[in-house]
Formats: sequence, C-alpha cells, structure tokens
Amino acid sequence: MLITPRTLKGFRDFLPAAMIAREKVMATAREVYRSYGFAPIDTPALELEEILLGKGSDETDKQMYRFEDAGGRRVGMRFDLTVPLARFAAQHIGELGTPFKRYHIGTVWRGENTSRGRYREFMQCDFDTIGTTAVAADIETGLVIHDLFRTLNLDATIRINNRQVLTGLLEKLGLGDQAVVILRALDKLGKIGRDKVAAEMIEAVGTTPAQANDVLALSELAGDTDAIFSELDKLLAGNERGLAGVARLREVFDGMTAAGVPSQRIKLDVSIARGLGYYTGVIYETFLDALPDIGSVCSGGRYDNLAELYTKEKLPGIGASLGLDRLLSALEELGRIPTTATPAPLFIPFFDAARLHDYLKLARELRALGVGVEVYPEPKKLGQQLKYADRRGFRAALILGSQEFATGVCQLKDLRDGSTQEVPLDAARIAEKLAEILAS
Amino acid sequence: MLITPRTLKGFRDFLPAAMIAREKVMATAREVYRSYGFAPIDTPALELEEILLGKGSDETDKQMYRFEDAGGRRVGMRFDLTVPLARFAAQHIGELGTPFKRYHIGTVWRGENTSRGRYREFMQCDFDTIGTTAVAADIETGLVIHDLFRTLNLDATIRINNRQVLTGLLEKLGLGDQAVVILRALDKLGKIGRDKVAAEMIEAVGTTPAQANDVLALSELAGDTDAIFSELDKLLAGNERGLAGVARLREVFDGMTAAGVPSQRIKLDVSIARGLGYYTGVIYETFLDALPDIGSVCSGGRYDNLAELYTKEKLPGIGASLGLDRLLSALEELGRIPTTATPAPLFIPFFDAARLHDYLKLARELRALGVGVEVYPEPKKLGQQLKYADRRGFRAALILGSQEFATGVCQLKDLRDGSTQEVPLDAARIAEKLAEILAS
Repeated sequence: MLITPRTLKGFRDFLPAAMIAREKVMATAREVYRSYGFAPIDTPALELEEILLGKGSDETDKQMYRFEDAGGRRVGMRFDLTVPLARFAAQHIGELGTPFKRYHIGTVWRGENTSRGRYREFMQCDFDTIGTTAVAADIETGLVIHDLFRTLNLDATIRINNRQVLTGLLEKLGLGDQAVVILRALDKLGKIGRDKVAAEMIEAVGTTPAQANDVLALSELAGDTDAIFSELDKLLAGNERGLAGVARLREVFDGMTAAGVPSQRIKLDVSIARGLGYYTGVIYETFLDALPDIGSVCSGGRYDNLAELYTKEKLPGIGASLGLDRLLSALEELGRIPTTATPAPLFIPFFDAARLHDYLKLARELRALGVGVEVYPEPKKLGQQLKYADRRGFRAALILGSQEFATGVCQLKDLRDGSTQEVPLDAARIAEKLAEILAS
Repeated sequence: MLITPRTLKGFRDFLPAAMIAREKVMATAREVYRSYGFAPIDTPALELEEILLGKGSDETDKQMYRFEDAGGRRVGMRFDLTVPLARFAAQHIGELGTPFKRYHIGTVWRGENTSRGRYREFMQCDFDTIGTTAVAADIETGLVIHDLFRTLNLDATIRINNRQVLTGLLEKLGLGDQAVVILRALDKLGKIGRDKVAAEMIEAVGTTPAQANDVLALSELAGDTDAIFSELDKLLAGNERGLAGVARLREVFDGMTAAGVPSQRIKLDVSIARGLGYYTGVIYETFLDALPDIGSVCSGGRYDNLAELYTKEKLPGIGASLGLDRLLSALEELGRIPTTATPAPLFIPFFDAARLHDYLKLARELRALGVGVEVYPEPKKLGQQLKYADRRGFRAALILGSQEFATGVCQLKDLRDGSTQEVPLDAARIAEKLAEILAS
C-alpha cells in the first residue's frame, strides 16, 4: 500500500526555481547585514515552553506548536526570532559584550489560519543592534534597510516614525496612561475611518472630543517632511519627551541623507505605529514602490529593554526584520522571479558515448574557472538532452561530439536565442565566451 | 520573577564565531553543489507522521519528535533529509523530470541520547542525482565530494566500495538470502575482531567456517587499489553480479582519476558497508587525513529506488551527505576555527563626536567597494573602542579624528601586529590598503 505523498496543510515544498529565488534574497540579506558588521547567530527551533509562552501576544501563544517531548519536558517551536534573541542575549551577553550586532536568518512556525492565505512555516531575516541607545544605531538601521532593497534592485520607500512623538502628545494631553487603548483605536484608522476612531476614543477611552481631535490631527499629518517636522514642533511644544522624539527623528533623516540615501527613499509617516507594544522609539516600515499594498516588507524599531523577562541587565536596542515570504510573493506578483531551475549556466550534453572522461575533465576545468557546469549523465540523443537543458533553463550548451574533439573546436549554443558560435576547445576560452553570453 | 534563560538539553546556541565558521562551510557546500548543477530545494520541518514513521530505522522512529497538532493531526519533525526527499520526489517528479539533481541544506531533529555527546538538532547538507543509473552520476558524486574538501582546503580521502561486490560473493557462496544478518555481523569487525565475527556468522547465520572465511577475506582485502581489484576478480570469478560491481568500481576510479582527482585522495575499501540497508551500489565514506578517527564526514551511495513507499515510479539515484556538525567538531579539534566574531574586516572608531555623518558616509562608500565596515555607535574613548574591536576580531581599524579630517590623511591600523600606516582619506585608497593587509 502506497502512502500518499503530501505536505501538511499550511506547509510548503520549495521547488528549484522558487528556492533559487529564495536563496538569492537570503544571500543578499546576509551580504548586506555582514557588510555592516552584523554577525550571524543561530538558536534552536525548539525552546522550553516557559521561554516562549506569554512572550509574544495572546495570538502567538495560541498559534504556537507545543508539546511534551520524550523526556516529559514541555517544549515549543519558536514563533519568531525576537523571543529567542531575548533569551540568547540574557544568557550570553556577558561573554559577547555590547554593542552586540547580530543577524539571524531562520525558520519560524505559527499555527495560523490558512484560509487567509497564510503559511504555518516561514522564514525571518532579522538584524539587531543591542546594548546602545545611540542615534548612530537608529540611522544605521535605516541604512541597512535602504541598502538591502538597493542591492535587491527594488525601489522601496522607508516610512519612519518615533513612538515618543505620540507618547509625548498623549502626555501633553494628560492621556499618558491610556496610550495602549488609544494606540489600539488609532490602529483602526485605515479600516474604519476618522469618525469611528474618534468615537471609540471618546466612548471607550473617555477622551474629550478636542483630545481625540488632537490625537487624530497628529496621525493625519502628511506631505513634505520639513512641513511635518514644523507641525510636530508646534503640536508638541512644551512637552519634553515629544520634542526629544521629534529631534531624534530629525537626526535620523539628516544622518541617512548625509550617508547618501536619496530623500525620496525615506518618508516621515506619523501614522505608523507598529502593532507591537514592544517598540519605544524610532520605528520603520518599508514599502515597495511598485506594490505598496502588499504591506511592509521590512519593519522594525527601537526597544528599551529586550530581555527583561530573563535578566536584570537592561538591554536597549534597535532592529528590523525582512519578511522574506512577503517579499517573494511581491517579486512573483511583479514577474521578477526567474523561472530558471538550475544554478549552473552551462550545459554539456553527453554526445559522444566514448568521451565521458573528456566531458568530466573539461567540466572540472570550467568549474575551477568559476563556471557552473552540468554534464548530462547519459549519452542520449542530442535533441532529448537539449530539451532537458531548455526545461531547466540553462543559459548555454557546449556541444562537443567526435568531430569537435577531432578538430579542437566546439559549438557554444546560446539557448535563449538559439544562436551558435565556434569556440576553441579550451576551458579559458569557453569561459570567456560564456561570460559574454551571460552579460548580454 | 525572572525566567532562567537556558536552552533545551541536547540543543545549542551558535554564537558569532561558531556561526561564522558554520556559514562558511554551508556556503562552500552550496557553491560546490551549484557548480555541478545541483539545484536547491526545501521541504517542511514538520511532516505528517505517516510520511516519516517506519521510513528510517527502529531507532529513528523512537527518536522522532512527534505530536498531535492543534488540528488533531499526528505530525513529526524530520529526522533526515532523505525521507522528505523521497516524499518530495514522489510528489513532484512528474513536474521536475529526470535526471533531477538537488541539494538540500537543512536542520533535522532526533531525540538522541545526549550522554554520547550527540545533539538533538543538527544540520545536514545533502546532494542527490535522481532518475539515472548511469556511471557518470556515480563518478560525479565522487567528484563533488572531492571538490567539497578541496574547496574547504582540507585533505580528505574518499573510501569507495560497491555493495554489489559483497552481494555477489554471498550469492556465489549460496548465502544470498542472508545478506542482512551477515552485514550486521561484518559491521562489528572493527569492534569485536575477526574471530568473534566468524563465530557469529557460523553460529547465528549458519555459515560453514570456509564460507565465513571467504566473507572475511573479502572484507580484509587491503593495500594497493590495482592489487585489490585483481583479488576481487579472482574471489568473484563466475558471479555476474559481483564482477559487474567490480567493473563499475573500476569505472568510478578511472573516471575520477581522468577528471583530475589525485590517486591518493581515493581509496578502494571493501570493508565499508554503510549501515543503511537502503544502499545497493557504489558507496562512499570520507575521512579527514588529519583526523580519521572522528569517522566519515561525508557519506553516501547509490540506491535502486528512492520513493517506493510513496510511488510506483522507480526512482534510482545516488547521493551523499556532508555531516556539518561532525566536520565542524573536527575543524575545532584541528584548531581550524577562527575566533573572529565579526564578518566585517574593518572597524571605524567613532572618534570625533561632531563627525558622525562623515563616518557613516565613508563607511557606505567603502561598502559600495565591497569592504565590510563597522562604525562604533558611540563616541567613547578611543582605547575602549579599540578594545571592543580587538575582542570582536576585526582585522584593521581606520582612525579618523578631527586632525585627520583636517589633513585628509587617516591612520589605518593593522590590529594583528599593531602597525599603523597613513592613507589618504579616500574610500578607494583605503580599500586598496586594507586589501593588502587582508592578503598579508
């Protein structure tokens, strides 16, 4: 009796073409993070349940995969990379020292409702700078996000805000202790509109209509960055915390611009709040210019104390997370995922059955020159082999039969336009000609 | 009440220095696999229990992490990448076509007994060629293994055998149907010695002393490859299967040698059998010359039918798996793991508090030239910052204070030997001088 081969609901296989695209984005994230001195770490997929439970939200608790292991321990699968980072930092920060800059590219699991098109296994690509409140780290976080999308060759706009701005306004209005409920109401602005949010603030929170109006006025500031900054200075006049928040935002904009980020790539957006209660300072959301509606593809912000549940040591920091799965969905929607199912550009058909050794030797010489080469394993008909090469998406084929071995000249076939050129049977010359095809 | 930050028994955190070494090995495996045209795939960490159960051994069944998910499904965490590959191939091979060459670098979980120094979470780096019985694929598997260790700059010897050789001998001796129990006895040769293995064969299996002696004589063949081949021809004379097995081994040796593998890097070893019943043809084990006792660091072989439990389609193939954790243990024992805890070579102290923008701008210019640079986020005392740089293992520091900004000449300090040189304050010139330090 055969077992039906299938994946669990909400889980996916990644076939070569999709995986090549994923690996490319992960490699880019790794490269950019490393170029700023962020170092890789890894933590276990499984943690003790007490480490994970109650550390995210009610929702993450409910969605967590958790069970009893064979040793009777209650364990859970990590649902993000932030809670493991907090545990990791509490455990190792003495040895590591601060500032500690780490990146972590890893799989996380959540028993999401799949009817919303969500997956239960996905990958996060986080980077964080822990142990400093310096504005340099805030600016750098923005620079990393910008360079990430620049390197991916995608136009993206980073929307930046500071939690302290709204906190300062609420303080000024005497609503400081109701920040959480007000934030919750404000979060619905896009969905239910101004009037209903105002009504919720007045009814559920107990603000005056004037207070609700001031809070909404702040969230609705839009337009030119300099104009918004002036408005903020006015709205927050007299409140130290709010003004300090605005000042820090100015420093972030000035720093990013001074470091070379074009001004149209960053946008002051006082309406973003980031759902998580966790954030306390500058916050970032990143939208693709070509597909803003897909939502933020890279988000993060500053927090006061990463690991307070595990250690008395205060660990402020700032970081952000690239949403790999959302970004890849966007790339797919934009037609930016290549259909290539092979990482090697060159295909060598096994044409002359007596020449296997020559094919293998030439292929190794080409690899030593940095050229990815696949040799077909069986001496089938050339047409059949070239069909295979087309299907896989090789860029070129090197055709070498008994005649070519005799004359020392082989045929390099561009599989995209079908053209063929003669090349001397020499690895260096072949690599050179292939490079021309790849560049074309 | 603080929660004690700790990892589960048998699970590990990877701190930057260890993770940088791991990422380097993984990147090398990826690069070598890709250069041969192997394409990446990924499969879920969780599979339906029925997909995994009974597919490995009694031991893997016992060690598997399995539980009921919130939807009442029995699920398990993958314990290797081969069973998921079988399920994957059965499900997608129609779409993918054959030959199908894939690599898969992924985490697997086994509830191992940790007292033997084993971990419960480890990484496998597999590559396989599915859908062909061609000898070209056998040779190529050996070439990939060889190039993997060559690229890692490690001297390794690949021991090669063919399951068909022993199978042929047993057939010739009329013991064909007792292969499994004889293999089990032979597997103990290293541990309990020749006499006890012979006794076990005679008593438990019911062989004659002469039969036991012939089987042991085969396993004990040693020395020069050509001499062993001649002995094998004699021992197997008249048995078609055995002689075909020897012939294929000869083709593998000839092919690897023709493709440029030095003869001392491959060794015919008729004593290796690979525990798994699964293998049916050529098999490989790989030992580090400097540390053979740690065991095989890359093993694999040919199988007749990968996915027979999930599909009627016959999928023969060949592949091998790099044991990342064992290899890294070996590298550590050999003192080959660098202690560098940063992926960036250059450190820029934040020396002149008024110049943050200039530091950030210069660092971005350097990154655009491919130089990894970390800028310290706070304008602390220079000595303190350089101590941080030393601890992290940066290779060089670029010292730039108000004087250097004024003169346009900065100090490039080699943090290994402490020497300092003057370099014009220009990203290209700094990158050039740093490259010289890195190459030294």
